[in-house]
Amino acid sequence: MAIYQPPKGMKDIAPEEMGRRKWIYSVIRNVLDSYGYTEVASVELEMWETLAAKAGEENLNEVYDFKDKADRRLALRFDLTCGIARMVANMRLPKPIKMYAIGNSWRYDAPQKGRYRCFTQWDVELFGIDSITADAEIIAVSSEIMKQLGLDLEVRINDRKLVENIFAYLKIDKRLYSDVMRTVDKIPKLSKDNILAEFKKAGISKEQAESLLKILGRKGKAKDLIPILKKEFESNADITESINTLESLFASLGSDRNYVLDLSIVRGIGYYTGIVFEAFDKKEQKLGSLFAGGRFDGLVGIYGTEDMPAVGVGGGMERLMEVLEQNGLFNKMQRTKSVFIAPVNDAVRPYAKKIAASFRKNGFAAEIDLTGRNLKKQFDYANKKQFDYITVIGDKEKESKTFMLRDMKTGKEKKMKF
Amino acid sequence: MAIYQPPKGMKDIAPEEMGRRKWIYSVIRNVLDSYGYTEVASVELEMWETLAAKAGEENLNEVYDFKDKADRRLALRFDLTCGIARMVANMRLPKPIKMYAIGNSWRYDAPQKGRYRCFTQWDVELFGIDSITADAEIIAVSSEIMKQLGLDLEVRINDRKLVENIFAYLKIDKRLYSDVMRTVDKIPKLSKDNILAEFKKAGISKEQAESLLKILGRKGKAKDLIPILKKEFESNADITESINTLESLFASLGSDRNYVLDLSIVRGIGYYTGIVFEAFDKKEQKLGSLFAGGRFDGLVGIYGTEDMPAVGVGGGMERLMEVLEQNGLFNKMQRTKSVFIAPVNDAVRPYAKKIAASFRKNGFAAEIDLTGRNLKKQFDYANKKQFDYITVIGDKEKESKTFMLRDMKTGKEKKMKF
Repeated sequence: MAIYQPPKGMKDIAPEEMGRRKWIYSVIRNVLDSYGYTEVASVELEMWETLAAKAGEENLNEVYDFKDKADRRLALRFDLTCGIARMVANMRLPKPIKMYAIGNSWRYDAPQKGRYRCFTQWDVELFGIDSITADAEIIAVSSEIMKQLGLDLEVRINDRKLVENIFAYLKIDKRLYSDVMRTVDKIPKLSKDNILAEFKKAGISKEQAESLLKILGRKGKAKDLIPILKKEFESNADITESINTLESLFASLGSDRNYVLDLSIVRGIGYYTGIVFEAFDKKEQKLGSLFAGGRFDGLVGIYGTEDMPAVGVGGGMERLMEVLEQNGLFNKMQRTKSVFIAPVNDAVRPYAKKIAASFRKNGFAAEIDLTGRNLKKQFDYANKKQFDYITVIGDKEKESKTFMLRDMKTGKEKKMKF
Repeated sequence: MAIYQPPKGMKDIAPEEMGRRKWIYSVIRNVLDSYGYTEVASVELEMWETLAAKAGEENLNEVYDFKDKADRRLALRFDLTCGIARMVANMRLPKPIKMYAIGNSWRYDAPQKGRYRCFTQWDVELFGIDSITADAEIIAVSSEIMKQLGLDLEVRINDRKLVENIFAYLKIDKRLYSDVMRTVDKIPKLSKDNILAEFKKAGISKEQAESLLKILGRKGKAKDLIPILKKEFESNADITESINTLESLFASLGSDRNYVLDLSIVRGIGYYTGIVFEAFDKKEQKLGSLFAGGRFDGLVGIYGTEDMPAVGVGGGMERLMEVLEQNGLFNKMQRTKSVFIAPVNDAVRPYAKKIAASFRKNGFAAEIDLTGRNLKKQFDYANKKQFDYITVIGDKEKESKTFMLRDMKTGKEKKMKF
């Protein structure tokens, strides 16, 4: 029945995975709602032009585009930021504007293990604030989400402007900035030799490359690293200013032990203009970043008449689920308790329904047998579906207005009054 | 900036509408979870063949299909039933299987007021049970959702088999059944003359048409109508059997005053095989049905090796929102209380953040000013965004560990201790 499968690189979300996702979604929503962010849902299909205006050259051929029946060029969105920026550009809202979204995005590339053509993202955007307090809040809310999911994070923070000022300090040719930036992005992933080879390819001298690697290879607590950097670059006003920005940011973030300054963090994507950050699970760093983002003051202006400062963050659901699984955190997830109600005959069914309704009112998921099959089969089903409790309702139970509630794990029974 | 709009017939969901939708989604989820249904999410894009296997001839040209970059024919799903049926056909799950989904569907037709190319649906399916108790539960859960949203419903219920047995009783040619059925579907919408004209076009005699209209035009309380029908058709075994089925269904549904027997309800779509129903808001009937569904025992077999009895129901979010709006029910929606925290300077900001955190822990949405602008501007913003409360935090508040909480509607202030 091969033709009745989902398209290549896409998958259905079955009940167990959906249960896990719903828990994650509710944590994300609770945290963001409590900080005054409001959820939105932009269209999943966009005009090609809308996505092309944001996608970098290198991403354009991964866009999932097609022509509709009227020969319009449309595309399935590749992220959630675009749509939110387009919405905001078209609305007249009091600033700051605090929005978030959870939804599917698509890319048309070769599917690999754990990498799908359709994937789910969460995305938070804060528009209209220049001040570093905005960057700090975005980092804080993202970290709070992960903390409430039970994860222990390392959030690596940097300022792209600092890196650019260091490029200038090392007299790197401006035209090489974007290639050099892309290599800097790889510092944590490649060996020293490979990085030096890449810097060479990007066109900078061996001395420049080694200086860069020495400066940008630094990572540590901001309170340790910032005084050192301040001293080292005290004669350079631009670098000093960037360091002061980072100092304010860390001050605003407070003394959370999870925040580190990592001078190699620059984010590959071209549109970031200031603070950038990436967060990793401390135990499962190899699985990649759990969220990443930064300041992108230029994007809203593309879609409207008014430019607007902006900070944003996003993360992928599939990777997050993998990290939660590796950390055994789904076991700690709160589940609704479930009870299976087995009426022994049709005559007691109306009474059994009343008991079901009462369980539902008290926060249980209560399923009543609908098949009329014998009790053994009803028990088999309740076992297979792993109900927490089961209760058999017969004439005696109806008369006495009591019933026995059996805990399916321990086998213990408890007498209950209706 | 016309090119940066959503594609034709599609729309973004902005904060206010999203807030309303989130309330509706949570009511749907709470009711269905409490009855033991589990949420799933099938892919939004399907292979063309998958959709074509279910879509009737008349719907195929409304399918939103296209060719991907590898020349595969794909389509955006037109409903949620297809994907769930395909998923279930591919899984080996203990029966009954109780699933639901909330998500977007697409159709490629001319957009009209209130009718979009992309729309949101909710959909509940119950697989594996022949018994009428399953039909009753599906009707009961759908009605419970609407009741919890505050709506007063009329649920019109019928059995397609009864209608077919009446066709046979009136000696209507079997080859005309589907055309006649489509006309029956229009009985509540068209005038008597127009219906008779349509019956004539469908190929039945004037006598047959008038008899049909007389029999199927009946609608009322099951307890009044069923005895009359029983007596009228006591000599016809097939019709009597169908009436008995309906009698059992209404018995299983209980004495809810919202359930009526309506012999003209047949649902246009071809794949229904038994009980069918449509629900309307009592005050806003002209806006169309809020949910509709029925038994479709043949669908799962299309997608797998095993045939499976099934009952399902679905409804559209856009129409539901319109009906809730007309009934003023969004005003009764529970909202999270929001508080705006205005620090007078940067020195008290860390303290203001602690107050914000404490509000969040107590279930408030708490936003702290991030701009550093003056108090007048902060108040303006808090007014425009309609916060429920505002509090100003200065040095005095920090020292005394107290603050004044101002109710933005009444203007009243209350002294609070941190």
